[in-house]
Amino acid sequence: MSFDRTIRHCRQCGHPVAKRLPDDGDTRERDICTVCSTVHYINPLNVVGTVPWWEDRILLCKRNIEPRLGKWTLPAGFMELGETTAQGAARETVEEAGAQFEIEDLFTVMSVPRVGQVHLYYRARLTSDQFDPGHETQEARLFREDEIPWEELAFRTVRETLQRYFADQRAGRFGTHAFDIE
Amino acid sequence: MSFDRTIRHCRQCGHPVAKRLPDDGDTRERDICTVCSTVHYINPLNVVGTVPWWEDRILLCKRNIEPRLGKWTLPAGFMELGETTAQGAARETVEEAGAQFEIEDLFTVMSVPRVGQVHLYYRARLTSDQFDPGHETQEARLFREDEIPWEELAFRTVRETLQRYFADQRAGRFGTHAFDIE
Ligand SMILES: [Zn+2]
Ligand SMILES: [Zn+2]
Repeated sequence: MSFDRTIRHCRQCGHPVAKRLPDDGDTRERDICTVCSTVHYINPLNVVGTVPWWEDRILLCKRNIEPRLGKWTLPAGFMELGETTAQGAARETVEEAGAQFEIEDLFTVMSVPRVGQVHLYYRARLTSDQFDPGHETQEARLFREDEIPWEELAFRTVRETLQRYFADQRAGRFGTHAFDIE
Repeated sequence: MSFDRTIRHCRQCGHPVAKRLPDDGDTRERDICTVCSTVHYINPLNVVGTVPWWEDRILLCKRNIEPRLGKWTLPAGFMELGETTAQGAARETVEEAGAQFEIEDLFTVMSVPRVGQVHLYYRARLTSDQFDPGHETQEARLFREDEIPWEELAFRTVRETLQRYFADQRAGRFGTHAFDIE
C-alpha cells in the first residue's frame, strides 16, 4: 500500500489535474482534470483487524515490515473492495498470524483524522493456540495482560484497543467503543 | 462524487496502467503503471450520517439529487479526508438539513460490500425543530414512527438503521449495531 496519495494526472485520460472547486456546489477544492474535467476525490481508508483471544491471553504479531518493523501489533490491515469489515479483519488475521478463530462482535471504531484513516477491530475467539504467521510477521505469540509489551507496541490504535479490552474483561462485559485518536 | 472509479492512467505520470500482481507479495491484481510502476488501489468508501431525534420524532430529508431523487433519507454522505466519522456525520447533517443538534453515540456500522462502502450512523439529539435544508434537500421534516414513509425511503441502510432505532427505543436502551447488507 503506497502512502503517497497525491494525484498529478487524470485517471481517465492521463492529462494533468489542477486544484479547483467543482461545479456541483461542492465547497472543497478537488483535483480536476484540465482536459476531461473528471473530479478526483481522496478518501479516508479503513484499517480492519482483530483482538484474537485464547483463555486469558491475547495474540500479538511482531512486525516483519515497515513501518514499525520489530514492534508488536494486533493483526490488521487495509480493508479491500468487495469484502465486509468483518471479512477484512478475518482475512488479515489469517494472513498475518495464520490463526484459527471465530469472529465475534465489533469492539473498537477509531477515527485517526491526522492520517485519514478509520480503524475497526473485532474480538476473535481463537480455536487453536498454534499459529502459522505469513511473511509480514516475524513471530506470533500469546500474551497475558501483565506480559503485554506496552512500550513495544507498533501503533496507538493497538494500545487503545488493548486497554479497552482488558478494562471490559475486568468489568465482565464487552461493548463497542467508538472514539477518536488525534 | 463520481461513481466510475475505474483507473486507466497513472496518477503520478499519466501513462496507462495494466492489471497485474504487485511484486510485494500482494495476492490481488492491481492497476500498475506500465512506465513508473506506481501501484493504484481502489478502496472502500465510508458514508457517515446521523439519526436526528426530537422527542418521539426523527428528522428525514427528501432528496433533491440523484440517485433516489424525491425519496426520503437520513442525513448522510461521503466522509472527507481530515475529519473523524462523527465530524463527517455532523457536517452532512448541517449541509443537508441545516439542523441544530448534539452528536451522541455511534449507532449503526453497516458494510455494503456490493458497492464497496461502509455506512456509519450516529444518534443526534436535535436542539431545535426548525431546519434550513441545503440544495441537496427538497424538504426536511420530523416523523413519528407510525408516520415514517417506509416505502419511500431512499436506501436500505436508512431503513435498517431506523428499524433498529425504534426497536432500541422500545427496549429503553440504545446500543451500537454492526451488521452487513448484501
Ligand atoms: Zn482527464
Ligand atoms: Zn506512472
